[in-house]
Amino acid sequence: MNQLRLDQVTDYMHQTQMEQLLISDPASIFYLTGEWIHPGERMLVLYLNLSGEKRLFVNGLFPIQVKDASGLQITYFSDTDDNISLLAEFMTDEGDIGVDKTWPARFLLPLMEKLPHAAFINGSQAVDSVRLIKDVDEQALMRKASELNDQAMNVLASSVEEGCTELELSRLLKETYRVLGTDGISFTPIIAFGANAALPHHDTGNAMIQPGASVICDIGCIKDDYCSDMTRTFFYKTVSEKARQVYDLVHQANLAAIAAVRPGARFCDVDAAARQVIEAGGYGAYFTHRTGHSIGIEVHEFGDVSSVNTARLEPGMVFSIEPGIYLQNEFGVRIEDLVLVTETGCEVLNHFTKALTVIG
Amino acid sequence: MNQLRLDQVTDYMHQTQMEQLLISDPASIFYLTGEWIHPGERMLVLYLNLSGEKRLFVNGLFPIQVKDASGLQITYFSDTDDNISLLAEFMTDEGDIGVDKTWPARFLLPLMEKLPHAAFINGSQAVDSVRLIKDVDEQALMRKASELNDQAMNVLASSVEEGCTELELSRLLKETYRVLGTDGISFTPIIAFGANAALPHHDTGNAMIQPGASVICDIGCIKDDYCSDMTRTFFYKTVSEKARQVYDLVHQANLAAIAAVRPGARFCDVDAAARQVIEAGGYGAYFTHRTGHSIGIEVHEFGDVSSVNTARLEPGMVFSIEPGIYLQNEFGVRIEDLVLVTETGCEVLNHFTKALTVIG
Repeated sequence: MNQLRLDQVTDYMHQTQMEQLLISDPASIFYLTGEWIHPGERMLVLYLNLSGEKRLFVNGLFPIQVKDASGLQITYFSDTDDNISLLAEFMTDEGDIGVDKTWPARFLLPLMEKLPHAAFINGSQAVDSVRLIKDVDEQALMRKASELNDQAMNVLASSVEEGCTELELSRLLKETYRVLGTDGISFTPIIAFGANAALPHHDTGNAMIQPGASVICDIGCIKDDYCSDMTRTFFYKTVSEKARQVYDLVHQANLAAIAAVRPGARFCDVDAAARQVIEAGGYGAYFTHRTGHSIGIEVHEFGDVSSVNTARLEPGMVFSIEPGIYLQNEFGVRIEDLVLVTETGCEVLNHFTKALTVIG
Repeated sequence: MNQLRLDQVTDYMHQTQMEQLLISDPASIFYLTGEWIHPGERMLVLYLNLSGEKRLFVNGLFPIQVKDASGLQITYFSDTDDNISLLAEFMTDEGDIGVDKTWPARFLLPLMEKLPHAAFINGSQAVDSVRLIKDVDEQALMRKASELNDQAMNVLASSVEEGCTELELSRLLKETYRVLGTDGISFTPIIAFGANAALPHHDTGNAMIQPGASVICDIGCIKDDYCSDMTRTFFYKTVSEKARQVYDLVHQANLAAIAAVRPGARFCDVDAAARQVIEAGGYGAYFTHRTGHSIGIEVHEFGDVSSVNTARLEPGMVFSIEPGIYLQNEFGVRIEDLVLVTETGCEVLNHFTKALTVIG
């Protein structure tokens, strides 16, 4: 167990009078214990309470190597045990019980039945608010993952050639990540050509590159358990005047948002900084998503960069800045960097050029 | 919408007096609508009620191509909308509300607050019990995916050579799947050498092949939205007498379970058939997991082949038969086939040999 992180989580529980907490997110359990457990559909719970109990409930198929003597108890169960009853026996039927935001109904509903007097609440904040602030070691890992992502983008940009398809580039990217020594992708890469680039979540497919097409590359790798995530938009062979204008606008929005990042500013201020540039340019209706998301062990972590998040930035936070403009049936442009909030502003973790680049 | 499947789901709702149902599992939504939507952490719900309402709640980032005029309504929301309130407005605060077994607490808990008089229940059975029985088209797709998996196993078995590592074989497998025209893997392949094979869920790593090692290959691909899943255990260069005995026992258990599959038998009877063979051989304590799981659009679907599942088999069900014996720090053996329940027994979907095979 990482005692410092655990103390921060229990501090949060004390402050909010959360008597009991069920942590089920494998990434949060890794964050606190150093153990990756991927239980699939089987139950996995790290139980904490204000009396200091720490107990992991895990299927015996996933034996745990406890690496320190921090007092973590383990209850193993089998495929045929009634694991919810096992868990409920250790719990008290009163006060607030926090559960992870991702805990599935198949566990939550029967546990609520067994503990009808307790108040179940979304307790993810207890861990998420700690994970939100990356410590110095984590910052170094985030920097490294983004450095490798910059290198991969460089390979990708110089590999686009006549006749190539989105899926071919995607495969090349995965091979590049392997050669670079990463541990794999942090999400399915989005490679989108031309009109496909107007779909922010396009499924990379068999589309073939055409002159004049915008080429969105939204890519990320994992290195030593930490994620990267970056987007660049290129143009193949030639670029129209309209596309150039849209690109410049998105680029300015990206820079304006980065300039707004400093301790004390709010997430929504960062979103507004990007959005105002695009609205002033007349494309407000075509920037259809939030400006960014926090990132760390998982590619999407708690802490949206959106108009409704009024939380204030603190040093150590890492999130994406990724404004975009999507013109249906025409093209799309998105430019995304990761930033790390520092004492005075921010450090941009990506260094691949954002200058308009015509490739091929 | 697939009207036949939808009718079966609403029949179930009528029979169980489930007034309202929230389907959130992307695979179930694909099964009913023909649309794959992967919303990540964003909300996705197909709402059904006994008055015949069918409404999809989806983030506008995922535009839907409605392919038929089956009366499906769509409510789009944005990243900053209060999507739970939007959903609750369409719902009534009474009777049973079924939610999918995987629906996360971050949606379920606030919806329960907005509808305090309704009874929330795990409603996955409504769709899962329909998905459990594969129709003729689905059976053909399952057969095809397993045929490709047989071919991939053949490539894998003939590629093990001196110095090769688990991860190298895993990469070769993925490339093989690509060449074979599959749509990718149905789960992260488990390639486990020697003592690693004694961990049923070993994380494929950098272990190098050694003479005498057991080589577990638990692999599966997706083809046209349907999954395959098969395990074979080979031995490299040589095989000990003990390993040969354990292999034969697992092989007999696999065959006994397959022989027990027929309409009217219970899932637990199939589990017992495999388990009895291994117990009689003296290795009962080392067969540490259920005998199998249902499979279809997802690699693990509702319907365990375990001692606690007393449901009866019906034609059209497809599940795995995968007994194993795991001897810590020594080796492991698992032999897995997919079977399709027929009118009189079952069809084994895998045809790769189960005879003890020494490779390399």
